[in-house]
Amino acid sequence: MPEKRYLVTPGPTPVPPEVLAATALPMIHHRSADFRGTFTRVLDRMRAVYRTENDVLLFTSAGTAAMESAVANLCSPGDRVLVVSHGFFGERWAEIAVGYGLDVEHVRYPWGELPNADEIGSRLEEIGGARVVYLTHSDTSTGGVADVQATAERIAGSGALVAVDAISSLAAVPLETDDWGLDVVLTSSHKALMCPAGLAFAAISPAALEATERASLPRYYMDWQRAIGAQAKGETPFSTAISLVRGLDVALDMILGDGLDAAHERHLRLGRAARAGVKAMGLELFSPDADSSAVVTAIRMPEDVDGQAIVASMREASGVTIIGGQGEQRGKIVRFGHIGYVDVQDIAAALAALERALVEAGADVGRGTAVPAALEAHAEPVAA
Amino acid sequence: MPEKRYLVTPGPTPVPPEVLAATALPMIHHRSADFRGTFTRVLDRMRAVYRTENDVLLFTSAGTAAMESAVANLCSPGDRVLVVSHGFFGERWAEIAVGYGLDVEHVRYPWGELPNADEIGSRLEEIGGARVVYLTHSDTSTGGVADVQATAERIAGSGALVAVDAISSLAAVPLETDDWGLDVVLTSSHKALMCPAGLAFAAISPAALEATERASLPRYYMDWQRAIGAQAKGETPFSTAISLVRGLDVALDMILGDGLDAAHERHLRLGRAARAGVKAMGLELFSPDADSSAVVTAIRMPEDVDGQAIVASMREASGVTIIGGQGEQRGKIVRFGHIGYVDVQDIAAALAALERALVEAGADVGRGTAVPAALEAHAEPVAA
Repeated sequence: MPEKRYLVTPGPTPVPPEVLAATALPMIHHRSADFRGTFTRVLDRMRAVYRTENDVLLFTSAGTAAMESAVANLCSPGDRVLVVSHGFFGERWAEIAVGYGLDVEHVRYPWGELPNADEIGSRLEEIGGARVVYLTHSDTSTGGVADVQATAERIAGSGALVAVDAISSLAAVPLETDDWGLDVVLTSSHKALMCPAGLAFAAISPAALEATERASLPRYYMDWQRAIGAQAKGETPFSTAISLVRGLDVALDMILGDGLDAAHERHLRLGRAARAGVKAMGLELFSPDADSSAVVTAIRMPEDVDGQAIVASMREASGVTIIGGQGEQRGKIVRFGHIGYVDVQDIAAALAALERALVEAGADVGRGTAVPAALEAHAEPVAA
Repeated sequence: MPEKRYLVTPGPTPVPPEVLAATALPMIHHRSADFRGTFTRVLDRMRAVYRTENDVLLFTSAGTAAMESAVANLCSPGDRVLVVSHGFFGERWAEIAVGYGLDVEHVRYPWGELPNADEIGSRLEEIGGARVVYLTHSDTSTGGVADVQATAERIAGSGALVAVDAISSLAAVPLETDDWGLDVVLTSSHKALMCPAGLAFAAISPAALEATERASLPRYYMDWQRAIGAQAKGETPFSTAISLVRGLDVALDMILGDGLDAAHERHLRLGRAARAGVKAMGLELFSPDADSSAVVTAIRMPEDVDGQAIVASMREASGVTIIGGQGEQRGKIVRFGHIGYVDVQDIAAALAALERALVEAGADVGRGTAVPAALEAHAEPVAA
């Protein structure tokens, strides 16, 4: 019999069986009345998740292609842009922008720290003339969730567009596209939207749309104007991952049926549970010890313990998949993802498996304390 | 009760229930031992389908993104390239190449005609110094399948790389990547590979790979070197459509279990059936009346009959989805796709539905002759 699996990672995330069933419906054509209704409904409800009246564009791709599209559709070679990073994915913004020949000012926060709105605002004023500020909301490499609202407020009126990677944060933690004045907000299907990977999204403000007209960087498949033109007819410009769109239709029923506030509270409580469990075991957090860390809990490994080996051992011994550190944190931290179709039993399973793996690796951790602490923290009421 | 649906289109194509079931398995992580085995097995067997020893790269995207990648990864701004088109999708090659600032020589054949290898060879010699020749194997807009082998032979030794859009042809009709000397061959999941849309592939020769090193056009998500680096570790550089890869694993079992020759014969006979039925009804073919037209059968509409209305009427009255004409042929032709999980019963259903729709539109077509003619043509033995 195949082993049971527990997926406690920030993307892919577990997919509800009802969503999986919808992805397995017999194929229909993407340019047909059969699909158009589903597609239009999905786009409308994505606007509700984004809290926006702007166009939301759907692409068949991973989220990284949407990030690239926010460079290629907004800029011309040599354009000045500001990138703010606080982890692996923020640094990806810089890598893409440099690769596209932009004049990149990179405000690089150490991994684990959170960006400061005032510093960003001052730097933007110093350099002057930046076309776009690229931000990361939740950087899953660290578990840090930045205060995008404060940064957007601080730089409002600067003339720079604000583009936000909300790939792992949208529908997990509060994000107000319109109220916060965000011009471009990106996400993808396999995070808090509880679907398989393969769809990416970009919410585009009128100002961002206008910027595409003078942006001369080459793009075709991810061209926003092409997508907008097709979507106005209830279509996509190119073949689309129909099965995933049908899955998302069901997932959006679930998310919006409970309401976004319920989703945010659910994730906040899962973050509390994970942090309480980790600390009860005697481990140190790498992600900020704050309610904002509702997407990923990143955990420092004790000295002489290799995080990659712990991840492998948890999977082999317990069937639990978590992930290790990326880039400079590889081996030093491990990470639980707790967005989407995850409940506190998954957190308990992951904590129990982590404890077991650490004990087997000879680490000195508290036994039997993590799971009760997690359940207790999870049960605490959340102040309104 | 929902109406039954028959999908007789060249992409998406019907997906076997076993493949759909595999796409609905519980989610696993793309950087895990659970996925690595499936992924590596899929890539190995894609090489078998491609008939190549070259690297086959897998992307989460539609086929158009793979086409774009064959421009961005091979060329620098101003590079001279030759595009050969014989329909809508060949013209897309030119549109992408022009958009990327290349010096594009476009040998444009009228829709419905097939390219001539000697003409292409001569033009290539006349212009001199072309880096890449972009070809379309099957152009689904017309049903024409070009003799890519003859063209590749004619231009061998010219110094130009040969890039082929085999999106709707691979696994449907013979294509020998290595024996024909094709440097880049593209396909996608939702055609003869019998999967949902969302995966695209590029087979890359060592010469093409070498060309990426001097190609300065910007690319990130679809960068071939990144894909090769990750695939060497059994991974993808970015999140991948895991559920679709698992479906493809099952589809490849089916395709390679029977063998590629069986797949080619199956498609050849379906093409014969469709053409015999269409002609028995008294309609004219737009696609070439030849065994090479094994992917799509394109049918001229009688005068005063709107093809788009026929497509809509077939879906409403009979539940059969075919497609109309694209671009300049919109309204003038309709098209049956017969690749992948299609059998002669589907062709019979489509012919019966087409006959009914045409009769209802007042067209003068033979009644009751198409389906028997199709079944008879299908039953004829194929010469070895």
